[in-house]
Amino acid sequence: MNFASDNVTGVSPEIMAALSAANAGTAMPYGQDEYTQRLQPQFSDLFETEVTVFPVATGSAANALTLSVMAPPFGAIYCHARAHINTDECGAPEFYTGGAKLVTLPGSEGKIQTPDLADVLTRAGAGVVHYVQPAAVSLTQATEAGTVYTPDQIRALAEVAKRHSLYVHIDGARFANAVASLGCSPADLTWRAGVDVLCLGATKNGAMAAEAVVFFNQTLAQTFGYRRKRSGHLFSKMRFLSAQLLAYINNDLWLRNADHANRMAQKLAQGVVGLPGVKLCYPVEANEIFIELPDAVSSSLLADGFSFYPRKGANSTTIRLVAAFNTSEADVTAFIEAARRYTCEGFPSVESKA
Amino acid sequence: MNFASDNVTGVSPEIMAALSAANAGTAMPYGQDEYTQRLQPQFSDLFETEVTVFPVATGSAANALTLSVMAPPFGAIYCHARAHINTDECGAPEFYTGGAKLVTLPGSEGKIQTPDLADVLTRAGAGVVHYVQPAAVSLTQATEAGTVYTPDQIRALAEVAKRHSLYVHIDGARFANAVASLGCSPADLTWRAGVDVLCLGATKNGAMAAEAVVFFNQTLAQTFGYRRKRSGHLFSKMRFLSAQLLAYINNDLWLRNADHANRMAQKLAQGVVGLPGVKLCYPVEANEIFIELPDAVSSSLLADGFSFYPRKGANSTTIRLVAAFNTSEADVTAFIEAARRYTCEGFPSVESKA
Amino acid sequence: MNFASDNVTGVSPEIMAALSAANAGTAMPYGQDEYTQRLQPQFSDLFETEVTVFPVATGSAANALTLSVMAPPFGAIYCHARAHINTDECGAPEFYTGGAKLVTLPGSEGKIQTPDLADVLTRAGAGVVHYVQPAAVSLTQATEAGTVYTPDQIRALAEVAKRHSLYVHIDGARFANAVASLGCSPADLTWRAGVDVLCLGATKNGAMAAEAVVFFNQTLAQTFGYRRKRSGHLFSKMRFLSAQLLAYINNDLWLRNADHANRMAQKLAQGVVGLPGVKLCYPVEANEIFIELPDAVSSSLLADGFSFYPRKGANSTTIRLVAAFNTSEADVTAFIEAARRYTCEGFPSVESKA
Amino acid sequence: MNFASDNVTGVSPEIMAALSAANAGTAMPYGQDEYTQRLQPQFSDLFETEVTVFPVATGSAANALTLSVMAPPFGAIYCHARAHINTDECGAPEFYTGGAKLVTLPGSEGKIQTPDLADVLTRAGAGVVHYVQPAAVSLTQATEAGTVYTPDQIRALAEVAKRHSLYVHIDGARFANAVASLGCSPADLTWRAGVDVLCLGATKNGAMAAEAVVFFNQTLAQTFGYRRKRSGHLFSKMRFLSAQLLAYINNDLWLRNADHANRMAQKLAQGVVGLPGVKLCYPVEANEIFIELPDAVSSSLLADGFSFYPRKGANSTTIRLVAAFNTSEADVTAFIEAARRYTCEGFPSVESKA
Repeated sequence: MNFASDNVTGVSPEIMAALSAANAGTAMPYGQDEYTQRLQPQFSDLFETEVTVFPVATGSAANALTLSVMAPPFGAIYCHARAHINTDECGAPEFYTGGAKLVTLPGSEGKIQTPDLADVLTRAGAGVVHYVQPAAVSLTQATEAGTVYTPDQIRALAEVAKRHSLYVHIDGARFANAVASLGCSPADLTWRAGVDVLCLGATKNGAMAAEAVVFFNQTLAQTFGYRRKRSGHLFSKMRFLSAQLLAYINNDLWLRNADHANRMAQKLAQGVVGLPGVKLCYPVEANEIFIELPDAVSSSLLADGFSFYPRKGANSTTIRLVAAFNTSEADVTAFIEAARRYTCEGFPSVESKA
Repeated sequence: MNFASDNVTGVSPEIMAALSAANAGTAMPYGQDEYTQRLQPQFSDLFETEVTVFPVATGSAANALTLSVMAPPFGAIYCHARAHINTDECGAPEFYTGGAKLVTLPGSEGKIQTPDLADVLTRAGAGVVHYVQPAAVSLTQATEAGTVYTPDQIRALAEVAKRHSLYVHIDGARFANAVASLGCSPADLTWRAGVDVLCLGATKNGAMAAEAVVFFNQTLAQTFGYRRKRSGHLFSKMRFLSAQLLAYINNDLWLRNADHANRMAQKLAQGVVGLPGVKLCYPVEANEIFIELPDAVSSSLLADGFSFYPRKGANSTTIRLVAAFNTSEADVTAFIEAARRYTCEGFPSVESKA
Repeated sequence: MNFASDNVTGVSPEIMAALSAANAGTAMPYGQDEYTQRLQPQFSDLFETEVTVFPVATGSAANALTLSVMAPPFGAIYCHARAHINTDECGAPEFYTGGAKLVTLPGSEGKIQTPDLADVLTRAGAGVVHYVQPAAVSLTQATEAGTVYTPDQIRALAEVAKRHSLYVHIDGARFANAVASLGCSPADLTWRAGVDVLCLGATKNGAMAAEAVVFFNQTLAQTFGYRRKRSGHLFSKMRFLSAQLLAYINNDLWLRNADHANRMAQKLAQGVVGLPGVKLCYPVEANEIFIELPDAVSSSLLADGFSFYPRKGANSTTIRLVAAFNTSEADVTAFIEAARRYTCEGFPSVESKA
Repeated sequence: MNFASDNVTGVSPEIMAALSAANAGTAMPYGQDEYTQRLQPQFSDLFETEVTVFPVATGSAANALTLSVMAPPFGAIYCHARAHINTDECGAPEFYTGGAKLVTLPGSEGKIQTPDLADVLTRAGAGVVHYVQPAAVSLTQATEAGTVYTPDQIRALAEVAKRHSLYVHIDGARFANAVASLGCSPADLTWRAGVDVLCLGATKNGAMAAEAVVFFNQTLAQTFGYRRKRSGHLFSKMRFLSAQLLAYINNDLWLRNADHANRMAQKLAQGVVGLPGVKLCYPVEANEIFIELPDAVSSSLLADGFSFYPRKGANSTTIRLVAAFNTSEADVTAFIEAARRYTCEGFPSVESKA
């Protein structure tokens, strides 16, 4: 009953099967194989426009490599203060860009607000040598708070960005969950809204280790291949990355997986909202839910064998629960029942446990 | 009949099975799983000493990350002029080290010679701020010429290196082939001979995408984890890297695979040596053979559907043939027969082909 | 009547004379000259301990080079949000460190507060690979608000830093003004309070272009020479940098210059405090004063030929006035009188100006 | 009697006077001063075309910054094996470019040969992700062997470079000596021959510390300002750099200084050629001469107080003598006489010295 993250899961059966199938025979290395050749047309279909696709194995690599073609070493990249690229990648964007600066913005529910972006860009000192130069905006979709940007929200942010000649990047580690949640087309959430490059996550949503860097802005793609190679992210047996990605978008697997995860998160949220002392921190719009609850409830749940990351606050604990493509309804039900038990019926005394 | 490289192959059945087995259930991410936990003791057993092991997915990543803990940005790394790190990684070592310099050495049969290393180090200007500072020596085992360093040769080079306070790195993309060829213990070829870190390749020898960075020098391992993370090479679903590596060394799979490849290379060499106009370039000590042959023979073989990389010279063509863990004897026989046919019986005229 | 910065001034006569004197004869390059050789003993005397001194020409170079020996590429450097290294060096620390991250702290009057530092370090995730690793604290002395840290304040911050194994750096572009203001010894403000390296500014205080990087922590000095060279900051005719620095500390020139500047700033502050609509933003403890005044007053003063940097706020303008080693009392008096005239007597109408 | 380098000299009187003159009054910082404003038109006049000029203080900074706008991190920069950027800058080009690779070419008399450049570029693998990508050629003028490229030689090399879309850089630490030697116009030696950027040295030829980065290719200049700032090479009191450069080209001071140095080198060469056991290594075309002589002669000259850098060979010693703008004829004569004495009359026995 592991709700710690969607990366605690294994691989979707469809993707495992694709890996086995791709293992037949020999194939030329480094992307000169038939699987990799199929990525371009199939992703172009999916996104309803001509795209260039580069497979890589991790989300950090996808993000950092993409930012390295968007920002010069003296550039500024704007992102939410809680963005994964800012807090959880040990400085990967700084490494890949040669020292560009992440400039963070606040924003409730994990989202950058258009006026905040406009304001910081107006004061950024573009053209003045003393200051890092505005280069890119990075949006996380779904956000680190489990919310999603609507197409309109992305378009508004992208318009501000474009007005200041910035590129727009999407860290889409959970992009599938956002698409499934909004029910809109991938195109509407990306290039039609002004996005230049999408890092489309697959690993958290059923792949073994695969992410697709999808360029809508072809000019930005020009040096990506060299950068991928020199960072050690060009796989010799590339067919095994590409096969994962092909299976991922085949028959809407990515959306079916995401939809299941989203529904499990909804179910979790509905099950715990209203319990005494339990507070939902953000709207549940994807596959993550954040809840504040009494410290003792958190401890008891952990003691019961539920896995999740707790963060101790002043008077309570905030926990994150993540549902995945294969989270079972039974696990969700078990969690809800345990939460109900600990919040409603109180806690066993130390003695009774002994 | 693909002899282009050992990376045109797929995955060993044993490793594919290990990936399937590892897919059961959930596992904590980023190496906090049971597979990754088993690497340390099992590789320590294999190398007969306490080692620290970091799995990564590509050889370039393994090499560049390792060099980044061995050399400061102002450091010099000594390697053979034909070393993969110098010629085929698009500057990965320079990227990861923050700009260290590869200083190349000549050497017949792909091997650095001890006197050459001693000479260049004596003249390197250690301690003088104008010069990049000697930091590490990188040896490729098996070499880019398909030869292998003996334990004595490595020890002699390492002694020179140590005398000048340099670290010793082995790019072991084909280390298994060297061990299988020499019949010595992995320990004798590494730490007992003075090696600090081995990048042990698995991908070319039957893995899907997995390499083990094996630290004999524990001090050097201290910052590796941060560097791996910030370069995007820390896998969330790490168990799938570790499972490959465990299966790789289990029941000597790595040596059995390498031994087969080596034998196929020997067979190829024996089959073509002595054919008219055919010259073996280097001793065949691992799984690669380099032969010089008439241009027309090379062209005819390619036209017949044999895959390999030719390099056109002044009056002839040099081709590289690489045997892999699953190269069939039938393919080898077919190649030898075709080579014999084209060299001994002459070539069909253009007309007869039409 | 230029109060824009202390870098609008020229060179102290004593330093100009030293440059002329140093021009006699030949001298071996790159610091093998007698001037440079005298730095070590003379600065050791000044700081009452054995120090290692490296001359460089700019403050940004001094700071960035120093941070590069304090923080690994995956490191975190803590500084005030308004620190020059964070806002005005176009990412120099990120460049020199290979991508370390500046983590900013708030703090009234330009000073980091000890509890804030302690708090952020407790939550920094030392030892966890996902996070940049705490490496150094950088304090600006005098601060960007024209205030100064007392020895006790520095010691308290350094103690927190040491508890977490961080190095302590002082950006001392205006360190002379702080020493002159506090009347304490340079030793008390640095190594006795726990400082590892001081970047001692001279350029703003009468030099042509010279800063001394003063290492109290000798271990940190080991690679500085290579880093200075490879960044192009090792001067061939080094004697001209060293001669400036020797003249700077000779006969307390640095403190006399700073003391004059401080007094002029005090006089400015006393002259404008109490004027209608004028508000002093921070205590005036060094050679900078920040005042908030009506927009029209700021505009009128600029129109009168006074130079300073204004920052437009919602209902008023904040201006910074910087006094230098050669700011004349007459200029200060003229400024005060003009400010009094515009604030007390009102403003000429647009018509009367025409 | 110091022939060790042209950087052992002090400052030309004309430049010292210019520094004093520039010290009057205040001036806005960072290049917003009248001296810096005059650089653009005056250097455009000198080079007979519109140029963009950036002053920096050292040659290493000039070169490395320039290369950083010419080559991406995955780029290859072609230069002579003995080029200063390759051997004497502790990896500065690698640092500034973020890890680009210097690919060295041989060449007698310190010059790259056109066929060699053409050959290496043909085999460089442009467009292949495994290889660093050809980006720039760097020529040293005058060369490290004291020879000069003619306009025709530069044009031929630049044509090869342009055919492969490379930029052409000149490391002109001794460019003045080349112009004075060839008697051609600066334009003929640079942009008319296909040069994109010239790093025009002044420090070795009479300045205190000043070099002009002269952009003929304006597009390349676009990001230079940010890179200069973030590397700490933007001087606050910029007028003192610019004043040196203005005085340097005023009234042909740069050429007069260089011409004197060249003549002294010629005189030295003529004086020692033909002495027994003395061999001139290269044609003397600028202000450096390289001579091979018996070890004992070298030792005796050093013992007599002549300064120069000797390099011990198998059976003799090669010494470099550098003449400067203020090398006196008397010193030259003294050297020649001493050399004649030691080569012709033999050496005092050990006893007679006692």
